[in-house]
Amino acid sequence: MKHITAGIIIIGNEILSGRTQDSNTHFIASKLPEAGIHLEEVRIIPDIKDVIINTSREFSSRFNYVFTTGGIGPTHDDITADAISEAFNRKCIINHKALKSIKEGYKKMKREMPKVAEKMAMMPEGAGLIENEVTSAPGFYIENIYVMAGIPEIMKSMFTSLLPGLSKGKPVISKQISILIGESRIANRLNDLQHRYPDIEMGSYPFKYEGKHSTSLVLRGDEIAELEEAYIELKNMVKEYEIIA
Amino acid sequence: MKHITAGIIIIGNEILSGRTQDSNTHFIASKLPEAGIHLEEVRIIPDIKDVIINTSREFSSRFNYVFTTGGIGPTHDDITADAISEAFNRKCIINHKALKSIKEGYKKMKREMPKVAEKMAMMPEGAGLIENEVTSAPGFYIENIYVMAGIPEIMKSMFTSLLPGLSKGKPVISKQISILIGESRIANRLNDLQHRYPDIEMGSYPFKYEGKHSTSLVLRGDEIAELEEAYIELKNMVKEYEIIA
Repeated sequence: MKHITAGIIIIGNEILSGRTQDSNTHFIASKLPEAGIHLEEVRIIPDIKDVIINTSREFSSRFNYVFTTGGIGPTHDDITADAISEAFNRKCIINHKALKSIKEGYKKMKREMPKVAEKMAMMPEGAGLIENEVTSAPGFYIENIYVMAGIPEIMKSMFTSLLPGLSKGKPVISKQISILIGESRIANRLNDLQHRYPDIEMGSYPFKYEGKHSTSLVLRGDEIAELEEAYIELKNMVKEYEIIA
Repeated sequence: MKHITAGIIIIGNEILSGRTQDSNTHFIASKLPEAGIHLEEVRIIPDIKDVIINTSREFSSRFNYVFTTGGIGPTHDDITADAISEAFNRKCIINHKALKSIKEGYKKMKREMPKVAEKMAMMPEGAGLIENEVTSAPGFYIENIYVMAGIPEIMKSMFTSLLPGLSKGKPVISKQISILIGESRIANRLNDLQHRYPDIEMGSYPFKYEGKHSTSLVLRGDEIAELEEAYIELKNMVKEYEIIA
């Protein structure tokens, strides 16, 4: 089975300036393992057209799927649709299905649609729409790039609606155990275990639990039998320590 | 005055796998504007040596400062020091000042230091140390790259201790106003304002306030007088709407 990969591009000066904490990456990243899609890189880039063009072209050629968030609203700083159109050598034109949806949205609110709201229907020629349940303005996809809103609530709804349409890989499972001991104390044995199970990714993440050094040990992989076997060994390895979770 | 730039490299499979939400980017990003350092890009990359080497070389040549988080612990998955050494053509060797600090830390805890903890003192030859108040294991810097822990509490302490040593630029100020109106309604006027103040970065960020369409308008720049002038115009522009904040 082929290895399906993805990259995320977070477009937004508001993240780089420290105004806003990005939470979209975490949402998307947490949904991909069960779909068997491997997230290989995330970039947070500014609202600069050439940077968006270059990054989306690079990601599109390197990964099976690219997800972007941000920059698809109606204001002057929303340049993502324009940049993505140029990146894929398409005209940026009114998508009539999107425009109809936006118009209906305003009708439902019993408000006149400002002319500038049409901008949210400007998309690369040939784009498909990504629906969402929060607003009437859809996202879009072109080739292997999925362009979503930056507002987390809308992005979540868009991602949830596009996910069923993606090709899936073998689900990546993770198992973890957290113990009341510093990671130095189990580092050698974990290293040995990693060498015996090279296909299982083993991570060690220290944290403080009630002020004491503690460690989460995480096994990840797509071979369930092998993962279970390694996990039994791992549990056996740490049985002398206090288990937190 | 020269424009001082920075990039952040978040090293960590635990972020890409969706296990952990990165908060280090937001902390660093929120501290840089007052130091007049412009954050231009963030990358979240996996614990793969070649990826760390290539990314750190690229960032080191593109930006004045590079900050990395993650991968400097004692376990097999901590490969940052090794990778950064190779990226800058240095040997990865025991830093005796760091080793002394780690040994003293164990002494204070009245515990024997496990041999594997020495790994946390392995650094590129010639590295300087980044102290922190949480643990006895320091981060390090070499050339223009600052290598910090991934645990937010430790990273914050490390960043706070290294910040005074950086060259500063002209502080970037931001002013914002939030209004109870959808961004479409003010898009044209904001666009006009942006054209009249090309050196002020103007952002429009929609959100819901008590279920209603609302917008935060943000002005950013390092020319205080110009920023104040634009802000007065902005306030005047939206005076007909209800101000939330």
